[in-house]
Amino acid sequence: MEKLEKYRLIIRQILTNHATLEANNSDSEIEGQLIFDTENDHYQLLDIGWDGLKRVYDCFIHLDIKDGRIWIQRNMTEAPSLSLGNSR
Amino acid sequence: MEKLEKYRLIIRQILTNHATLEANNSDSEIEGQLIFDTENDHYQLLDIGWDGLKRVYDCFIHLDIKDGRIWIQRNMTEAPSLSLGNSR
Repeated sequence: MEKLEKYRLIIRQILTNHATLEANNSDSEIEGQLIFDTENDHYQLLDIGWDGLKRVYDCFIHLDIKDGRIWIQRNMTEAPSLSLGNSR
Repeated sequence: MEKLEKYRLIIRQILTNHATLEANNSDSEIEGQLIFDTENDHYQLLDIGWDGLKRVYDCFIHLDIKDGRIWIQRNMTEAPSLSLGNSR
């Protein structure tokens, strides 16, 4: 498999796994939204929704592929307050 | 033109215009990154980069198309501190 295709596949798997984990561990009104811009190689997992009357909008992970490398633009996987799986 | 296609075109135009405006009004290390997930209809403009030693990661606009309607998930176009065009 070509390197870039392998990167794309791995990134999509990691983010999808995280989203599934969030969905299984949460009964809240907060959605784990996956955004895959496959044309420009931007990959995100966002937490969007409502915590009671409080609006929630947080980027949980954001990975890009640029010049053949993976760029970690955002990584909150170890921040307990943003992880639905850990905080509830 | 089908309604959904028209929505997609308009959203992409608005976000691209904002990104171009930011790029023209800024000589900073902050990139206006467009993310278009055309398969799932998620559309974003992010500010990503560095302001000196400070990491910048902000969602400027995020629009979705869901059930035939446009959802405004995030709109910071009128928040001066996030708009590169206004703050510099």
